[in-house]
Amino acid sequence: MESYNRDDIIFALATPWAQSALAVIRVSGEGCRQLLSTSFSRPKALLEAKNATVVHGYLTDGPKGPVLDEVVVAVYTQGHGYTAEEALEFTCHGSLPGLRRILSSFKRLGMRNAEGGEFTFRAFLHGRMDLTQAEAVQELIASQSERSQALALSRLEGSLKQQIQASKEKLLTLLAHVEVQLDYAEDEVDDFTFPRQELEEIRQALALLSSTYAVGRLYGQGARIVLAGATNVGKSTLFNLLLKQDRSIVSDIKGTTRDYIEADCLIEGIPVRLYDTAGLRESLDTIESAGIQKTEQLIGQADLVIFLVDSSEVGHIPPKDERTLIVYSKSDLFKAPEGELAISAQSGHGIRALVAEIAKRLGAGFGSTGDELVIIESERQHLLLSGAAQALGRALTLVDTDVPLDIVAVELGEAMQNLGELTGEVTPADILTKIFSGFCVGK
Amino acid sequence: MESYNRDDIIFALATPWAQSALAVIRVSGEGCRQLLSTSFSRPKALLEAKNATVVHGYLTDGPKGPVLDEVVVAVYTQGHGYTAEEALEFTCHGSLPGLRRILSSFKRLGMRNAEGGEFTFRAFLHGRMDLTQAEAVQELIASQSERSQALALSRLEGSLKQQIQASKEKLLTLLAHVEVQLDYAEDEVDDFTFPRQELEEIRQALALLSSTYAVGRLYGQGARIVLAGATNVGKSTLFNLLLKQDRSIVSDIKGTTRDYIEADCLIEGIPVRLYDTAGLRESLDTIESAGIQKTEQLIGQADLVIFLVDSSEVGHIPPKDERTLIVYSKSDLFKAPEGELAISAQSGHGIRALVAEIAKRLGAGFGSTGDELVIIESERQHLLLSGAAQALGRALTLVDTDVPLDIVAVELGEAMQNLGELTGEVTPADILTKIFSGFCVGK
Repeated sequence: MESYNRDDIIFALATPWAQSALAVIRVSGEGCRQLLSTSFSRPKALLEAKNATVVHGYLTDGPKGPVLDEVVVAVYTQGHGYTAEEALEFTCHGSLPGLRRILSSFKRLGMRNAEGGEFTFRAFLHGRMDLTQAEAVQELIASQSERSQALALSRLEGSLKQQIQASKEKLLTLLAHVEVQLDYAEDEVDDFTFPRQELEEIRQALALLSSTYAVGRLYGQGARIVLAGATNVGKSTLFNLLLKQDRSIVSDIKGTTRDYIEADCLIEGIPVRLYDTAGLRESLDTIESAGIQKTEQLIGQADLVIFLVDSSEVGHIPPKDERTLIVYSKSDLFKAPEGELAISAQSGHGIRALVAEIAKRLGAGFGSTGDELVIIESERQHLLLSGAAQALGRALTLVDTDVPLDIVAVELGEAMQNLGELTGEVTPADILTKIFSGFCVGK
Repeated sequence: MESYNRDDIIFALATPWAQSALAVIRVSGEGCRQLLSTSFSRPKALLEAKNATVVHGYLTDGPKGPVLDEVVVAVYTQGHGYTAEEALEFTCHGSLPGLRRILSSFKRLGMRNAEGGEFTFRAFLHGRMDLTQAEAVQELIASQSERSQALALSRLEGSLKQQIQASKEKLLTLLAHVEVQLDYAEDEVDDFTFPRQELEEIRQALALLSSTYAVGRLYGQGARIVLAGATNVGKSTLFNLLLKQDRSIVSDIKGTTRDYIEADCLIEGIPVRLYDTAGLRESLDTIESAGIQKTEQLIGQADLVIFLVDSSEVGHIPPKDERTLIVYSKSDLFKAPEGELAISAQSGHGIRALVAEIAKRLGAGFGSTGDELVIIESERQHLLLSGAAQALGRALTLVDTDVPLDIVAVELGEAMQNLGELTGEVTPADILTKIFSGFCVGK
């Protein structure tokens, strides 16, 4: 990992760059305590502090320089703390000119600005966490909903790591059996029965884990829901009603000049970006205006399209599919077809059923089967897991067609390789760099 | 102090409300450790932790509730830490949904959201700092320049407190002499000589401290500098040149539609808001347009007006005063009058001299006489100090006119009262409330 020199002493502001009561500056790397004790009003106290203690004092701008701030320093000795290397965490006043002075003084002492994710990278390097946990750190920080934060926290605690570990161990045992057979099969022909059932179980576990990405992605990145339908069918009213479902998090409504309006909200805990589009004219054949073109574009990128139909004058209705909900409006005035979703913006009738249906379509029901379920939200993890499951599927097919064991073993090996990359044991350096550089600085 | 109940357990997010690597939540109040140990994965470790140590663990949503976050808790026992009462500081992940979960969980546990400045108020209450130091905390956080941050830090360290303390002790000694004289004067007539020289020295010290407000206010709140002059005289060019003096901090230029443009910058370390005004027409008598009215208004509120004059066609020139600098432009083309400030926007000639003159006018030279000088930036402190100095001045006049000592003692008592309010010993509750409520939350 060229860009992340492992021996440097690194530092970073770990709290936002804004005026506030407190700010935290992290420092990590062998020798940081010795170095910084020369810029501290109580060098002896700092040098002699035990692991996991805090020391109060004044930071100075280099040895005998002017005082920079009154601080509290948390001390971590090698093998402890977040990075598992010698580290200090300075809690300072949240003054921007003060922080500027401290950060530039740290630089002059010869320490280096940490790259994004570099503290977590060091924690990973020193075995404090595996790669799935390291990824969970950033997913946790960037989470946009409480559910997503809770899922990331569970992965950080090691829930995903443990499930992968379990599959890996089973696969390893199975691989050992196969290898023994390959080594000795020529000498001693015994009646080896391939443990097909075990392999199928491992494959299913990995496939299930991989499939949770559909839900995890929604919690993590949010879903795009587009309201479509003819003009005057009540789209804007529904838009406002759906936003009201979540009074706390609705952001500013944007985009009135762009022929559509968008706003963020939560629907049953799923972060949603809701689009209220320009009405599709009665005649859908004459797509003329730029507004309608944009609507078509939004529909193409949507996770879910809610197509609103006026119950009184049912015109064009697009085909139903898993991505399209047909909803009849004005149900207080006109009766919608039997068994169809119908709402009344006036009475609020049908809105709760619609919200439940949206959540169901987006896959929220998935998570409710039990909190112990691990859900992934990283595309990298998804690809590796489904790759592993597919390799095991191919192995099963080979076994069933009596292909020689050494060819089966290649597929099993590929699955093992995927699992190793998941946890970071065999992940190439450039992929590691890519993963950690997406983190925020200070983590 | 009605609004600040002293027995509650209070909590607050002490870092900015924004996604980041880390966030710190402060909790203070007797019993907070016992209460929060029920929502912590390692209650025993938390309860038994010594003062100034950190404990790693998981916060849960109430006893046996779901995990909220992985945290590190700094533990302070009574008599220690910032508030000098039992306190905990949680370092959490900087995830907004995560922080939302934690803060609402803390509320459900029965703790109270801290008011602005309430942690510092408790520190003051418990004698950890006097009122001048408490005020310095917020002045430090809100400082807009490195110089202002350094001055506030010096006050936080107690520089102002010590100077006031010194004056107070001298005054107390003097008052004691006077009181003895008042008590025994009738019995034993001795030759009491009023220590006039000592009193004059105290008065001078307080008056000097009070006068530093002129400078401190500029560092703390910034100076308003207005560029004025006829149209086409080169105001906008100078505006841009002055902004370029400070490449790091120039903020967005605002206000093109308001007949003037403003931008923030630093001039020799002094935060400055610079205004480029609508040109004053050739005939200053016909003040007709709203733009010119606004310019006049800005000039009225300015700390310094730079009146730019075209060297080639000198028209109306306002009278020079301490608030008005006359500057001749286009000095590369035309010769300015002898001894006057002249600049050329083309060659840059004269700009450095102008900047030096601005800094001198704003009083920056004051601070350069020595870093040991204490400078105040609080209007409250300014009023109390000048009030004390004036009372002592009146006392001196009374002494000189042989007015009875008991009348002199009244003035000395008023000065003592002012000094007591400065340090917070005799400050009324409503004034305390006013001071601390201006602080940011979490401090």
